[in-house]
Amino acid sequence: MRGLNVIKVGGALVEDAEALGTFLDGFASVPGPKILVHGGGRSATAMASRLGLETRMVGGRRVTDEDMLSVVTMVYGGLVNKGVVSALQARGIKALGLCGADLGCIIAHRRPPVMKDGELVDYGFAGDVDKVDAGAFEVLLEQGIVPVVAPLTFDGKGGLLNTNADTMASEVAAACQASRLTFCFEKAGVLSDPEDESSAIDVITPDSFERLKADGTVSGGMVPKLENAFAAISRGVGEVAITSAFNLSGGTVIREK
Amino acid sequence: MRGLNVIKVGGALVEDAEALGTFLDGFASVPGPKILVHGGGRSATAMASRLGLETRMVGGRRVTDEDMLSVVTMVYGGLVNKGVVSALQARGIKALGLCGADLGCIIAHRRPPVMKDGELVDYGFAGDVDKVDAGAFEVLLEQGIVPVVAPLTFDGKGGLLNTNADTMASEVAAACQASRLTFCFEKAGVLSDPEDESSAIDVITPDSFERLKADGTVSGGMVPKLENAFAAISRGVGEVAITSAFNLSGGTVIREK
Repeated sequence: MRGLNVIKVGGALVEDAEALGTFLDGFASVPGPKILVHGGGRSATAMASRLGLETRMVGGRRVTDEDMLSVVTMVYGGLVNKGVVSALQARGIKALGLCGADLGCIIAHRRPPVMKDGELVDYGFAGDVDKVDAGAFEVLLEQGIVPVVAPLTFDGKGGLLNTNADTMASEVAAACQASRLTFCFEKAGVLSDPEDESSAIDVITPDSFERLKADGTVSGGMVPKLENAFAAISRGVGEVAITSAFNLSGGTVIREK
Repeated sequence: MRGLNVIKVGGALVEDAEALGTFLDGFASVPGPKILVHGGGRSATAMASRLGLETRMVGGRRVTDEDMLSVVTMVYGGLVNKGVVSALQARGIKALGLCGADLGCIIAHRRPPVMKDGELVDYGFAGDVDKVDAGAFEVLLEQGIVPVVAPLTFDGKGGLLNTNADTMASEVAAACQASRLTFCFEKAGVLSDPEDESSAIDVITPDSFERLKADGTVSGGMVPKLENAFAAISRGVGEVAITSAFNLSGGTVIREK
């Protein structure tokens, strides 16, 4: 959809009412059709702990047994989602909270157990996305509605699954052929000097990515993040931005050319 | 809206997966545009208790402090709502979960403290409905979407409020000029003999209501229930049914004439 912005904001921000408010002021002022995808992992971990449930992460992903699925359904689909929707409505945005089960808009399958460091890991009710119903989003966007998406997918058979919010955002952006996919980040962008917040690189292309990897400017967790950004572009997303939650039009833009 | 059915189902049913499934089979087969309003009070009380929070009810209404508001937001807006939406999607229904904040569809104000039995009672974040945006529901219904409404309203300023699900159903039905408003109930309908489940009265009109009160057939909590039904009719709802969750087309029908 021409002009569509898909913006992903993480769990740390949605927990801090003041920071969330500042981000949502910026989000509200983004022109044109837009979709917000939010996380909520920290809140889910805190709620699980209050309920006496232990959170187990493997490779940065939550192991989701039946009790944990109830927790993420409550926290992502209820507490966080409705809080964000309320805050956007108060800013004059026609927000509508959704998860993958609503309208059956994001179908996934349960991830099969995988070998990890010599151990068979069953992530439980973790969903790998099969299909995003772009038409369902477009019908809403055409009505001036701003979908607010919680990171829960639907197995098509009556069950919810827990899916990473970055993945949700990429899949929604690709299916809806978004003009721009923005990942909010705790830094100003991809920094050429990690100590200097003013050193965000404006644009990264496949060519410059290779150079930045070769000279060590980009390393560690930033490499898969950028690889994911290029993957989204190869699926039809116009550009991907990695930027501060408080500067949505700035940061680093990843483009084909 | 011509042919619109608004159906309210309570918290006891939504907790029992098998009973809920049977009810949803029946709900799925109701023809034409329809809206489901659900409760969830028992689940909220159970979750509050697991979190060490005490539930205080006054006159059958929950006192909702800030912690309890988080619990009902999680339980009604997340756990129960997304569970019902998933189960309906699995039955081929284009279900969409909503609360009053979504699209700003149900606006309420915080109920002021009231005198009750000589004591000033502050219900906290309890909402009395001001306005239902019928247009928001109609846009969805016209797309073949079935709204599934959690009993949370919106204060218009970024806050959620806890509202009784029966009230939500009546307000939505009146605003949308529903043809029929159905309250699911643990009995077959309004019984002429409380010991005989086959004694449901088919139709109650204002005239027969007076006779049933006078001869003692209808008494206690059924009187305000029926008064509420007549109030909905006086606001333009076609008819109100009080029936078993497993027999949506049966039970007792309350009509003007």
